[in-house]
Amino acid sequence: MSDKLLLDCGSGGSASHRLISGLFLKHLGNPELNRLNDAAVVPLNGGRLAVSTDSFVVDPIFFPGGDIGSLAVNGTVNDVAMMGARPLYLTCGFILEEGLPLADLERIVASVAESCAKAGVVVVTGDTKVVPRGAVDKIFINTTGIGEVICDPTPSGDRARPGDAVLISGTLGDHGLAILSTRQGLSFESPVASDCAALNHLILRLLTEIPDIHVLRDPTRGGLATTLNEIAASSKVGCLIEEDAVPVRPEVAGGCSFLGLDPLYLANEGKFLCILPGDQADKALAIMRADPLGTNACRIGTMEAENPGRVILRTGLGGKRLLNMLEGEQLPRIC
Amino acid sequence: MSDKLLLDCGSGGSASHRLISGLFLKHLGNPELNRLNDAAVVPLNGGRLAVSTDSFVVDPIFFPGGDIGSLAVNGTVNDVAMMGARPLYLTCGFILEEGLPLADLERIVASVAESCAKAGVVVVTGDTKVVPRGAVDKIFINTTGIGEVICDPTPSGDRARPGDAVLISGTLGDHGLAILSTRQGLSFESPVASDCAALNHLILRLLTEIPDIHVLRDPTRGGLATTLNEIAASSKVGCLIEEDAVPVRPEVAGGCSFLGLDPLYLANEGKFLCILPGDQADKALAIMRADPLGTNACRIGTMEAENPGRVILRTGLGGKRLLNMLEGEQLPRIC
Repeated sequence: MSDKLLLDCGSGGSASHRLISGLFLKHLGNPELNRLNDAAVVPLNGGRLAVSTDSFVVDPIFFPGGDIGSLAVNGTVNDVAMMGARPLYLTCGFILEEGLPLADLERIVASVAESCAKAGVVVVTGDTKVVPRGAVDKIFINTTGIGEVICDPTPSGDRARPGDAVLISGTLGDHGLAILSTRQGLSFESPVASDCAALNHLILRLLTEIPDIHVLRDPTRGGLATTLNEIAASSKVGCLIEEDAVPVRPEVAGGCSFLGLDPLYLANEGKFLCILPGDQADKALAIMRADPLGTNACRIGTMEAENPGRVILRTGLGGKRLLNMLEGEQLPRIC
Repeated sequence: MSDKLLLDCGSGGSASHRLISGLFLKHLGNPELNRLNDAAVVPLNGGRLAVSTDSFVVDPIFFPGGDIGSLAVNGTVNDVAMMGARPLYLTCGFILEEGLPLADLERIVASVAESCAKAGVVVVTGDTKVVPRGAVDKIFINTTGIGEVICDPTPSGDRARPGDAVLISGTLGDHGLAILSTRQGLSFESPVASDCAALNHLILRLLTEIPDIHVLRDPTRGGLATTLNEIAASSKVGCLIEEDAVPVRPEVAGGCSFLGLDPLYLANEGKFLCILPGDQADKALAIMRADPLGTNACRIGTMEAENPGRVILRTGLGGKRLLNMLEGEQLPRIC
């Protein structure tokens, strides 16, 4: 094992998990942090609040479908919403490189404002640091989101049960491929845009209509495969996914095949997994499909008692294979 | 005016204020953010919470008296406490450079844990990003703190009134000089250590005994002079400071005179200003001096009706001069 930090440790995959368990949880562990959910749920003033934090280091800072500002708002808003909470407040910490064009900064701050307005959240406090040229690459943004928890029990990665349906709100891989093709200067016949969007309004509608949702999770870094592995491991149940049911845009499928990437491992920034009792699946899908952010929602699989902690993919040809967690870094600085 | 971001804009002084008002508040402004306090106070679940965020980019990451980990905890804990709140929860976002020695990372995470234990706060959620070598300088940490507001009205930078006493909890300039001398490889006869510490327990005691404290503020970036200017401007009152009363360690005074620095503009990380009705000053000083973090507490001045928005320094020789806000960057990456 290396005595220096490897890029792989930031992938959101197995190497990340080893760093988090072996080093961060060793020193900082507590019941709430150990849960490794997208956000924490903690008591305050007799009620409960959800809180989530994320630092955004995406490269490039502008990409089709969004920029580091919209990503920083939507990413954190979504993480708060996934805990069954209504996001209300955001904090913004900007780390800026000396020499950053002020026009770029203003465009990003305006994008933060526009995304906040859409999501219905307010930036209540912030911080700005400027570091000498070379100490940071252009701009990094940290956002922390605070929300009011609206259901009990809250959806959580350890609550999937055998028989639960696995739903996805739309197509996979759009964000990852948009970033990668922008970075590499590739252009495809049909350009691919990031799916970056705030999901909280749709989530709120779902939670209001269907109180017993077991898991909500947005498959960002590490993609669907990694997120499902986390859930299967936390819930100690198996997961069977039908490959043919997984929605992927033709242009994303084409780009992935050209680049040798798997859309199941690519990051998404405007999609969520919803795991709930099988008899509630149709109702949930109807609610999702009625929303512009869920038009391509579909059921992609089922949680089962067999193979606890593992994710199995049934391929189009009827074979079955193990769908592992992402190991190292497929694509650094995706978010 | 430059069309690129200058290092001066991160100083916490006038150039920072122009960037914040002209760009950030233009797009993101709202009543809570516009207040520009160290933390926001917002309603949730029928109660009120205080929330503060800060990104820490200090260079070097280890220094006498602390490291980037203890600084990240104490800095945010203090900002929450300054709003009249009991800090409870912390989020931690780490941005790490590929190749960072794991031993350094572990030492910093252990320092975060130790500082949390001392302050009585818990890290409830976090985020780790690893970026390629050269995209960040070693390690940056964002912390966001959440606390329960325990008084009403809360202390606020706009609540200073003529006749209020201005108290400082101890000596000035220790953190700034410690960072600068470490960075420059200077060694003085008496080495100077950072004053980095969590002030929340002392603040809680003060607020319990003296409910009517008008302003609490920790003079970090920009030092005492900048913080007093912010308060005088927000409160629209004048401030008279007695130079001879300002406590500065002899070794800090010596280092400053050698380097041509003014301790009134140097950052502090374990001191606070307390502005309250003059007749409560002695009681507050007694409480402060009974705490190891306040042994050198003293009264340094008075808020007055004359010269609203300005800070006047009465020098040891009896003359008076205007004490301006820090303009540009005295020392980048101080916190």
